[in-house]
Amino acid sequence: MVSEPSTEIMEATYHALCEHGYANLTMQRIADESSVTKAALHYHFDTKQELLNAFLGYLIDQFEARLACDASDPRERLTTFLDAIFSTASDRDTDFAIALMGIKAQAPYQSQYRERLEEVDETMQSVVKDAVADGIESGLFDDVEPDTVAHTVVTLVNGSRVREVTLGEEPNEARSLVEAYLELELGWSPEGEA
Amino acid sequence: MVSEPSTEIMEATYHALCEHGYANLTMQRIADESSVTKAALHYHFDTKQELLNAFLGYLIDQFEARLACDASDPRERLTTFLDAIFSTASDRDTDFAIALMGIKAQAPYQSQYRERLEEVDETMQSVVKDAVADGIESGLFDDVEPDTVAHTVVTLVNGSRVREVTLGEEPNEARSLVEAYLELELGWSPEGEA
Repeated sequence: MVSEPSTEIMEATYHALCEHGYANLTMQRIADESSVTKAALHYHFDTKQELLNAFLGYLIDQFEARLACDASDPRERLTTFLDAIFSTASDRDTDFAIALMGIKAQAPYQSQYRERLEEVDETMQSVVKDAVADGIESGLFDDVEPDTVAHTVVTLVNGSRVREVTLGEEPNEARSLVEAYLELELGWSPEGEA
Repeated sequence: MVSEPSTEIMEATYHALCEHGYANLTMQRIADESSVTKAALHYHFDTKQELLNAFLGYLIDQFEARLACDASDPRERLTTFLDAIFSTASDRDTDFAIALMGIKAQAPYQSQYRERLEEVDETMQSVVKDAVADGIESGLFDDVEPDTVAHTVVTLVNGSRVREVTLGEEPNEARSLVEAYLELELGWSPEGEA
């Protein structure tokens, strides 16, 4: 195991997942997307699971960078959150959402994946919860339970991903639902601010 | 293809899915759970996909039977809906939720699965939408958009299933979220009625 997997390997994993899905992903197919040999990949990662665990960590870092918001305004922080979650979907994004769903379906069998997914969930919930709590404190939002709002928002986000994969639903449809829900709870909607 | 697959084969499929998950499900393992031979299974179903498609149809019939509610009271209909969705989870139910997630992850590749999942989604949305519309008409619920409420509820339900599988979250947690959401939208909560 190398402490910092190269960006090239992570990008190759992304492309191989989009191309072949999780079930058909092999070390060889990841190698094919990079300048690294399969043997070199195995030098860094014993198994496909280990490589994917590193890849999930890489994704989380990217996601957290997109969530990073210096704004003190909680409305702006919620809008940045929704932008990061529901970034404009390309066909490639849908392929990737499909591959991620394959990984999620493995979470019960792979504790490493599960820990990564828990990490993402905690990050998402805390961003929403903190923004809502701050907005209530500064009188911008109605006085509601920040934990409930955060839990509802992330459950809608989880549902949106499944609907994208299983029903071909556009992520923007779920974004509208989340915005309508926030307006109902907080008395404020990100839509009006955009 | 037999027009009406025997209940025994469907039950055997259920048990084999709980035991082995979707990825490791084979015709042999389904046969092992029943008194039918693998050859006899293949007589009815050419492929595992075909058998699972019949199985999904069987599940939908069962689900619709649980949703069936003669009550004219829209509050009672919503409560029956939530009872059917969030029926008390046993370990077996969780195993089955995990297996179903494996099937959902295959929906982009198997149009038959996808059609079945669309069917379930339409059924769920129409039950909620009709109950909400009737409740508004009879003055029991606030005047909201029934389509939005139905879409939000099913997205929360979809999210709940993923959270059960990937994070081990209890389905009752999501039920509370749905109830709180309905109270917010409709001015009425199923919880208070139970």
